[in-house]
Parts: sequence; C-alpha cells; structure tokens
Amino acid sequence: MEREELFRKISIENDKKMVLLVLDGLGGLPVNGRTELETARIPNLDLLAAESELGLTHPVAPGITPGSGPAHLSLFGYDPLKYEIGRGILEALGVGIEVGPRSVAVRGNFATLKDGLITDRRAGRIPTEKNREIIADLSEKITKIEDAEIRLYSGEEHRFVLVVTADGLSDQLTDADPEATGQPIRYAQAKNDAAAKTARIINLFIDRLTAELASAHPANTCLLRGFAKYPAIPSMRDLFKLRAGAIAVYPMYKGLAQLVGMEILATGRTIQDQIATLKQHYADFDFFFLHVKKTDSYGEDGDFAHKVGVIEEFDQWLPEVLELAPDVLVVTGDHSTPALMKGHSWHPNPVLLKSAFQRRAAAVGFLDAVAPSSRRDGGKIAKVQSGVGFGEASCARGILGNFSAMDVLPLMMANALKFKKYGA
Amino acid sequence: MEREELFRKISIENDKKMVLLVLDGLGGLPVNGRTELETARIPNLDLLAAESELGLTHPVAPGITPGSGPAHLSLFGYDPLKYEIGRGILEALGVGIEVGPRSVAVRGNFATLKDGLITDRRAGRIPTEKNREIIADLSEKITKIEDAEIRLYSGEEHRFVLVVTADGLSDQLTDADPEATGQPIRYAQAKNDAAAKTARIINLFIDRLTAELASAHPANTCLLRGFAKYPAIPSMRDLFKLRAGAIAVYPMYKGLAQLVGMEILATGRTIQDQIATLKQHYADFDFFFLHVKKTDSYGEDGDFAHKVGVIEEFDQWLPEVLELAPDVLVVTGDHSTPALMKGHSWHPNPVLLKSAFQRRAAAVGFLDAVAPSSRRDGGKIAKVQSGVGFGEASCARGILGNFSAMDVLPLMMANALKFKKYGA
Repeated sequence: MEREELFRKISIENDKKMVLLVLDGLGGLPVNGRTELETARIPNLDLLAAESELGLTHPVAPGITPGSGPAHLSLFGYDPLKYEIGRGILEALGVGIEVGPRSVAVRGNFATLKDGLITDRRAGRIPTEKNREIIADLSEKITKIEDAEIRLYSGEEHRFVLVVTADGLSDQLTDADPEATGQPIRYAQAKNDAAAKTARIINLFIDRLTAELASAHPANTCLLRGFAKYPAIPSMRDLFKLRAGAIAVYPMYKGLAQLVGMEILATGRTIQDQIATLKQHYADFDFFFLHVKKTDSYGEDGDFAHKVGVIEEFDQWLPEVLELAPDVLVVTGDHSTPALMKGHSWHPNPVLLKSAFQRRAAAVGFLDAVAPSSRRDGGKIAKVQSGVGFGEASCARGILGNFSAMDVLPLMMANALKFKKYGA
Repeated sequence: MEREELFRKISIENDKKMVLLVLDGLGGLPVNGRTELETARIPNLDLLAAESELGLTHPVAPGITPGSGPAHLSLFGYDPLKYEIGRGILEALGVGIEVGPRSVAVRGNFATLKDGLITDRRAGRIPTEKNREIIADLSEKITKIEDAEIRLYSGEEHRFVLVVTADGLSDQLTDADPEATGQPIRYAQAKNDAAAKTARIINLFIDRLTAELASAHPANTCLLRGFAKYPAIPSMRDLFKLRAGAIAVYPMYKGLAQLVGMEILATGRTIQDQIATLKQHYADFDFFFLHVKKTDSYGEDGDFAHKVGVIEEFDQWLPEVLELAPDVLVVTGDHSTPALMKGHSWHPNPVLLKSAFQRRAAAVGFLDAVAPSSRRDGGKIAKVQSGVGFGEASCARGILGNFSAMDVLPLMMANALKFKKYGA
C-alpha cells in the first residue's frame, strides 16, 4: 500500500487540536560553540523540551538543501520528490497570485529587441515603477488569447509573472528565452503533443506583447522561463481528514498552505499578532500551521544576533500558545538557515513534539540545570553540555532520533489519536 | 523525482576535496566490554571525532549483512538493491580480471565425468598448479566461439572464471550445474529470447572444453554457475560530477571502484604507501576512496588483537591525511566484521565526518577525558562511558544518528558545497 493510501485509510476525525509552529530556517551552525537556537535564551522552550519528545528531521534526505517549497510540503506530510512545485508557480505564490488547477504560470523578463535581435535580456533593468505602468497597460489590452484567460503581475525591475488559465493546458514547454543576447526571439516549443495548445497560446502572447510594446524601448519584448502548472496535490482534508488553517504573513507560505487545501487566516505581521489569530480561530480548525519568517531572513543575511533575537521573541509569546493547551504541539523549522552560511542548508531541523502520549527525551536533572536561579550563562552552557533543553545537540540525542520531516505530520496525527490501527 | 535524477540535477563542480577513508569491516562487537575500535588506542581519531559529526550507517538495511560489493556500492552513493553485482562479475573483479559492458562472467568448477555422468563436482579438488596448467592449455585452444571472445582465469584448486565477450550477450541463463553427482552434464538454458545466443555459446564452450579435456581425468568437464553481466551503473562523474580516484590494494576493491568510474591509482601495499599515493595525486581528483583491507581480514580470522593493531596503525598515519586539510573527510567501514563472529555482520558502521560546516556532536569535557596524561586505561574507559571519541557507542549518540550508508556520499557532497538547493 502506498503511503498516501495508508493515510486515507487510517485517518479519522476527532476534536483534538494540533498546532504546528514553524520557525523558518530555525536550525543553525555553531559560532563560538553554540548554534543560534543554543545561544538564544528560551526558558519557555527549554522547559517545554523537558516534557516533550525531541528529534532531528531531514526535509528531503540527508545532504539535500531544500527550497521553501519542498521543505514545507514535507512538513505538511507530503513527499517533496513526488510533488515538484515549478518555479513559475512558486513565483506566483510568492507574489500572492491566485493560481488553480487550470493555470500555467511562468516567470517573465521584459527585454530589449533591436533589428530583430535581443540586445538586453533585462531591458536595462527598468524601474519597478515603469514595469507597473507597462503591466497595467498590457493587462487592459491582452486579456484573452483563444479561450485562455491572460493575467499579468509586476515583479521588481524587469520581472513579471504571466498566468494563463484554460482547459487542457500543459507546462511541458521549453523556455521562451534564447539565454544569450544577439539572438532572435525564442519561441516556446511543446515537449509533447499535449502541450501544443499551450505553446501556441504562449507564442501568440509573445507576438501580441511585442506588437503592443513596439514603441516602448527598451522594454519592447519578453522572455518567459519556467512554465509550471499548478501541481495536483491531494488536500490535507483528503489525506488526513483535517480542517487546516494557516497563519502566515508572507505570500509564498500562504500559497504553499493553500496548495494543500489549508484555509488562509487573515493576520497581522508580528508573532504576537499571529498568535492572536491562532486564539481567535482556535475553535474552527483541527490543525494550525503558524509560520514565522524572520528567523530565515536573518539567517540569509548572516545576522546571527538578530536570528537569535527572533527565536527569543518567539519564546516570549509561546506561553500564550501553551495556554490554549493544544493536544499536540510541534515546534520546528522547515530547513536550516545557518547565519554562518547565509543561506539554506542541508542540516536537519530540531523538532519538539509535545502531547499527552509521549516518552520524554529530557535528561533527569535538567530542571535543576535551567532552574530560574541558575538561568544565566552557566545555565546555558549546562544546557549545551548536558544536551537538554531545545537545541540541535539535545534534539540529536532525542527519543525521536533522526527522521524524515515527512513523518512529522503522521506523528502529530498519531499523538492526536487521529490515526486508526493499521491491520488487525 | 528519483534519487539519482535528483543528484544529477543538483550536483555542481567546485575545487573542494573529499576523502573517504574506508577501514574494511571496521565495526565490531565488544569483548570484555569494548569493541575492537573502542579497544584501540587511537589518539588522533579520538581528537578528530571531538570536532566531527558522528553516526552509524546501515550498508543495506537494518539486519542485512552485506558482501563487499553491496557494502561499497552503498558507500559510493548507490542503492545496493538497485544495482546487483552478479557473483561471476565479483569473482572476476576479485582476481583482477578486466570486464566491461559487453562481457558475461561466470564461475567455473572443473568436474569429473564418467560414463556420461558427473561423478565429482570438484574434480577431486585438483591442485592449483594443475588448474593453471589446464587453463594455460585451454586458453590457447579455445579463444573464440562464434563471434565471442573467450577468456579463462585460474582460481584456487578446481575453480576458474570464464569471461565471454561479444555484442548482444545476456546473463539470463540457468546455471550449467546439475548440483548433484550421478547426473549428466547440465547445459545452460536461456531464460528469455534475448539470452538464446549466450546460451548457445556457453553450451558450445562446455562441449569444446569437455572434448579438449577428454584425457585429463579427473578434470575432464566443467560446471558453470552465476552468469553475470557487467552491471550498467552510472558513473560517479555522471551522477555527482566528480573526478574520483581509488587507492586500493586488493583487486576486488579496485574492480568495484572501477565499476563506478573511479580511476585506479597505482599504490604500494602498506597504509603508509597508500597515504603517500593520496598525497601524490591530491591535486588531480575531487574525491578519493582509500581502502584498508586488513581490518576485515583479521576480523574474518577472529583475530581481535590484530584487528585492533591495524586500527592503531591507521591512526598513526592519519595526521598525514589531516595535513592535506581535505574539505570533507570521512572515516568509516563498509560493513562490520566483528572478530567475535569471524565474518561480516549486520551491525551498522561507525562513521565520522569532518568538514567546515558541521554541528559537533562531541561533548564538552571530552578533551579532559582523553588528555595525554590520563590516556591510559582510565582514559579509555572514560571514553567508552562518556560516549565520546571514535567508537560504536559514541557514534550511536552522534548528531548524524543512524542512517543509510547510501547517504554518506550525499552528505559529503553537501559539506563540500557540491550540491545546489533543491526547489525554490
């Protein structure tokens, strides 16, 4: 039996509540002997860890550094190598564009055409302002090609996103991009018969756009790369019988949540706002995904201290989540973003799972080590040395071991008693 | 997306150097409370472990005892259940025979035929000397059958290897062996149409050999078992974009390395010689596989003390490798060969990975425990008890956890920054 078939078969509905708190890019690498998480003063997480199960998860596989797409799919219980999310779709999700199963999305560049040849693949990096003007104008002029609805969205500078919506579209097209200057317009080619219609529409679009922009030098044509269809992913409702709500600030994460059928809850921008949203909707869903972005942003910037700061801010608000007393609570990251590396990395994610049915991983004597009276640097060092509290080293020794992030949601389901026995 | 497709997609070339040091059969079982590795005095490995990531790897899967073929394939990043290396090929590799994609190899026995029946399946275990004479004679007389090139190689006593090389050969044949005495010659049968040509050639060979040896009683016919084609394995260059060099003494390991496209570097027989070879070629490759055989040999002999001795000898030369400052260094075994069991076992391999981008698993305070002044038995016991240094117990608590040996190479690639991000 396939994994997803198993989930469909054994999932049941009940009134238990599950909360997945994701600190984006949480995992780190040591600077002066401690990672960001091990450096942060997180008394609430440390105490929670002492009564939780701990482990480390691989988003895709050992050694593989994931983008946000695969990393989140995995946390939502999906195989990230089975469901690939194309670049065009992620781009669309990232700028908050609604895309659906009938859509193909693709990244566009405005480019410069002169005497029939592409002379600048970025149209001199026109100002974003200018881009918006052009897109507004084109959006009025090109709304339909054949039976396909055409939508255009401005990005930064020369970038835009094109979404084509109709029945029978395919993303099996070659890029419409010569990838070098001094070449004529490169049209998209269908990789198979089923993509012929899409190729025709796309190429008609390129000609229409080029005609409309004849006098708009330097932005007088376009390149299109990364055709991607909205992936056909079963919903969390279908797989896990869950009513799932997402509390995220950034469009891409809302888009990813929407992709698996979560309802997107309107929320403010701070962690405090997001937790208020959780409280407000607590009665309405079985599963909540709450996404904190800034840990990753500071990691990408190489800003160790501010990443630590976000983790500490999160810790401060954690008691408000605990007051809700969710039946199953997980705190983890989607992938690691060590400040040391200024980018995503392959290092597995620290994960903490708190439920009524668990084997605690925390060492005896931990409560002494982090007791308020000693919670100074001494306490912190004691934590790292003894491998307790919430940190990479303690998670490495945790009772959950090293496992796939795809198994986090099944573990939550189990702890919420939402999985029936498999077999008799 | 499949695993190998993923590797092809995300691998990049850079100037980082990776060194994989394999002590064959390294893992062991405790005698008087300590394994071979835990008994060995290995100050250099212990110190290295304190600044490395540790774990335990399963060559194939928990509980599966691998042969050298699957164990090494796994360490090279290949799924050993996907690429089966037939016995005939391994036998050929083991005696240093060159085989290629057009070859089928098979193990042979000289046997005794009397009145049309096999009376001895081993021809009375003729002396190896006699075997060599017969093979030399046959090699002159039988060089070709149809368009197939015939090559014969002596083994010990009654054993030999036959390699048939031509276009369109297949290994889908039944064994040409009645498996009991008192039976007539059993010819090979094609399991499918594509194997018909090979079956015909093999059976003509059996008749030719039996005719040539009519007067050579007791070695006057042959049995052939384990037809195997050279497996079609993608090279490490293809999968990982690596220029890989192998420093091994024994033919089978050179053969296995060659199978995945490594270049075999000429080397002397001692560990010191092998490390000198590593230094000599250090500029020429991205990846080095250095294979130490004797740990396994002594394990097979049940010789605990000498296995310990080889590990200690290796430790003595380790600083010369460290001086090269490879970007990623792994020390591990291909499988365990506990002296206690006098053979390969299923116990996972201790593995140590040292790179710039790692979370150290070693406990603070380790350096005190193994400080030179205390590195007597007390220090050794402290090491085993505290689970630090390089040993099975410390690896079991390591930050890498228990994982598949197939993931060792991907982890090395990641740490060498030779993997791009997967997905956006």
